[in-house]
Amino acid sequence: MPDEQSFHMTPDEFRRHGHAVVDWIADYQSRIESFPVLSQAKPGEIRASLPVNPPAQGEPFDALLKDVEKLILPGVTHWQSPNFFAYFPCNASGPGILGDLLSSGLGVQGMLWSTSPACTELETHVLDWLVSMLGLPDKFLSSSSGGGVIQDTASSAALCALLAARERATNYISNQTGSDGRVVAYASTQTHSSLQKAAMIAGIGISNLRLIEVDEKFAMRPDALARQIEADRRAGLVPCFVCATVGTTSSNAMDPIDEIGRVCRENNLWLHVDAAMSGTAALCPEFRHLQNGLEFADSYNFNPHKWMFTNFDCNCFWVADRKALIQTLSILPEYLRNQATESGAVIDYRDWHIQLGRRFRSLKLWFVIRHYGVEGLQYHIRRHVQLAQTFAHWVREDDNFELAAPVPLNLVCFRHKGGDAANQTIMERLNRSGDLFLTHTKLDGKMTLRLCVGQTHTETRHVENAWKRIREEAEKVPA
Amino acid sequence: MPDEQSFHMTPDEFRRHGHAVVDWIADYQSRIESFPVLSQAKPGEIRASLPVNPPAQGEPFDALLKDVEKLILPGVTHWQSPNFFAYFPCNASGPGILGDLLSSGLGVQGMLWSTSPACTELETHVLDWLVSMLGLPDKFLSSSSGGGVIQDTASSAALCALLAARERATNYISNQTGSDGRVVAYASTQTHSSLQKAAMIAGIGISNLRLIEVDEKFAMRPDALARQIEADRRAGLVPCFVCATVGTTSSNAMDPIDEIGRVCRENNLWLHVDAAMSGTAALCPEFRHLQNGLEFADSYNFNPHKWMFTNFDCNCFWVADRKALIQTLSILPEYLRNQATESGAVIDYRDWHIQLGRRFRSLKLWFVIRHYGVEGLQYHIRRHVQLAQTFAHWVREDDNFELAAPVPLNLVCFRHKGGDAANQTIMERLNRSGDLFLTHTKLDGKMTLRLCVGQTHTETRHVENAWKRIREEAEKVPA
Repeated sequence: MPDEQSFHMTPDEFRRHGHAVVDWIADYQSRIESFPVLSQAKPGEIRASLPVNPPAQGEPFDALLKDVEKLILPGVTHWQSPNFFAYFPCNASGPGILGDLLSSGLGVQGMLWSTSPACTELETHVLDWLVSMLGLPDKFLSSSSGGGVIQDTASSAALCALLAARERATNYISNQTGSDGRVVAYASTQTHSSLQKAAMIAGIGISNLRLIEVDEKFAMRPDALARQIEADRRAGLVPCFVCATVGTTSSNAMDPIDEIGRVCRENNLWLHVDAAMSGTAALCPEFRHLQNGLEFADSYNFNPHKWMFTNFDCNCFWVADRKALIQTLSILPEYLRNQATESGAVIDYRDWHIQLGRRFRSLKLWFVIRHYGVEGLQYHIRRHVQLAQTFAHWVREDDNFELAAPVPLNLVCFRHKGGDAANQTIMERLNRSGDLFLTHTKLDGKMTLRLCVGQTHTETRHVENAWKRIREEAEKVPA
Repeated sequence: MPDEQSFHMTPDEFRRHGHAVVDWIADYQSRIESFPVLSQAKPGEIRASLPVNPPAQGEPFDALLKDVEKLILPGVTHWQSPNFFAYFPCNASGPGILGDLLSSGLGVQGMLWSTSPACTELETHVLDWLVSMLGLPDKFLSSSSGGGVIQDTASSAALCALLAARERATNYISNQTGSDGRVVAYASTQTHSSLQKAAMIAGIGISNLRLIEVDEKFAMRPDALARQIEADRRAGLVPCFVCATVGTTSSNAMDPIDEIGRVCRENNLWLHVDAAMSGTAALCPEFRHLQNGLEFADSYNFNPHKWMFTNFDCNCFWVADRKALIQTLSILPEYLRNQATESGAVIDYRDWHIQLGRRFRSLKLWFVIRHYGVEGLQYHIRRHVQLAQTFAHWVREDDNFELAAPVPLNLVCFRHKGGDAANQTIMERLNRSGDLFLTHTKLDGKMTLRLCVGQTHTETRHVENAWKRIREEAEKVPA
């Protein structure tokens, strides 16, 4: 007969196996450059190696770790490799990982202040720290009318902002009786696809999300925005929301926040600013001009899990008027009532996002900021920008290549002059080689390669090698 | 001049600090009963102990760990304590924590199959395993028309189900042009508050979520549901969705899935089944009858992060028709296009939920299942149910107390016969004592105490002590 603690891992076993996992990760970091960056697995290959049925009896921990090495690693695309230049980075660091491990070990729920006060208060505190670290307007401080919260992703943050805007514009009637098809939102043709998804989810509909045209730098045109708002108003619609982007996903374009903000202010629209990757650059004062005009923003967000060494998921989202957000998302059933909530003296973060449950995510962010210090973080952001600028310089100097967009920070959009097929071939060969991983976009209708410098351990030699390999593959392309 | 790797934690430092964190967690597990379960912190107390400004220079890792002990722990409510009987559990285990640590170490994004094939394929595989482990209908298997995905929480799962239902009922027109205020959804008065939140988010509106009355066991009345649907149809509305619950949050009531399912089938409504905590009980064949009728369900979900030893977040969500879900949530911008997606041979999980980014959450679930084996998991679920049944027996035998609802599994709803004030006093004194933590609900208009047995390390002695302490506090209540 098993006793009550049978099957559980004892604290001593946890110690032993935990050390083994930590060591495995340290070793993984040391040998990460030995793997092909993009997994070479074929569809179905990983599944085919797994047993059809779950085990009836438990297995020793060592067997699990061996299977990670043998069965899982071949199917991993190494996002933490210094040769990863694809998409946007999703970088991590020792202090981030260990802060998150502590969060798992504590295993608390932060849905209400009372369900773990430290979970709420550390989060509020660190998000207030970031307001000053990033030079954001004081209205986003919890001591003013606003405040910050950790969301999972920029997609969820955008959805929450859109919902709050919808409700403010309809006087909180949509929440009661449903959206009536008259609410309209605005983004640019270059805005992240999550805004279209948010419009669908919120019952606003994709056709009521206007995609405003962009200028030659792929930035939203404020004059076109103003004209569209005016036309929609004349048609009896209810404009409510604009999303402006600091560093679009496709090409790192910078929407003119200041001018867009004035249009929003004149028309009483909610301005959400999405700085998912590029927001981290504001740690360095010299890059803050890229988001001039934030005093007009009703909400702002960036992802420390992209470029600030904090492992996924960690999106920081601020609102200028927390009441508008809370009024949109709050529901209080009896089983969640408690004295602290009713006193009004505390924040209950469940009213700040979609989910009810929430983990202690501020621990990892706190660890990252304290481990690096503001100056350590600034140092690495400047390095990454410098490396990307150097790469852009090489592209400019090479007769076979051209830049496809401005390079304000750490993303370089470029192309071989040989046309779409040539660029497609170059990209596929590079990615198949496993030496590096980069992805593409389309700009001015043309296939464009993207090289984004933002991985924690990317050094000069990795960027030099990327350029060498790109030119090697380019030479094989028929003229 | 710092070099390129300055400030980063080296692999050797990570090893050293990582061992320290693992040891800290092992020690925390060993001494967890020495802390008051519910944090005794006052609003603002934790923040007041933190420095006003972020550090300019980095700090040694040891200082961070010391501050967790000194500044954070006093603000922690110990969800992992064996004396935690509040809300629903959010239990964790060694293998779950270490699987999650590996996920942090690998740091991959699973938004597309191609961004890390193992992340997608292991998830599909483990969710197929669970279909057989829980005795769910085959239609939820990825090899049929359906399939499973890991969501963060049951709130998000319910939202996705509601959205898919809204779109199916409107022929995918809402996604394009917005919700038109005619769509209606159904839950019971006892359904989790996240359904109201989902109706608000989806632009359906709270007043278009009908809360159907319940019977004396707090279960939804299928006859009342059928009548309401009929009335709504006659009013020209578009009924689209029903949420039935296996184990409500308030009292663990079991909605009659079979009868509700027949009503849904007759009316062509999407049936979503929320088994957030209680779904885990289906690991044991003797409890599966509680969810008879799942063959009628279009979607189903439960939370391994509640009662299956898998640390938060981990919600398992299945749909019978994956096309309906994907068609609702898919957006494909150029920068995410890739050959694997276009081949149609792979799953891209970003189309199965709200977020784009996603972490490798199946690792921890895989670790838990393999560590315990199906029989180990069954053993602990049966223990928890048995402990709750024993507690219910004690309540029944005591003249001062009464049960407030049936006890199908591991949640006991009970009250002192002295009335609301007596129960409020008993609860507050118990929680303030730190010896245990339990919460309340309202049933039949009366304040009701809830004791939920589901923490990983809860043994007979903890439940015995809870009952002893409850009776002690009850004796102090004026008659």
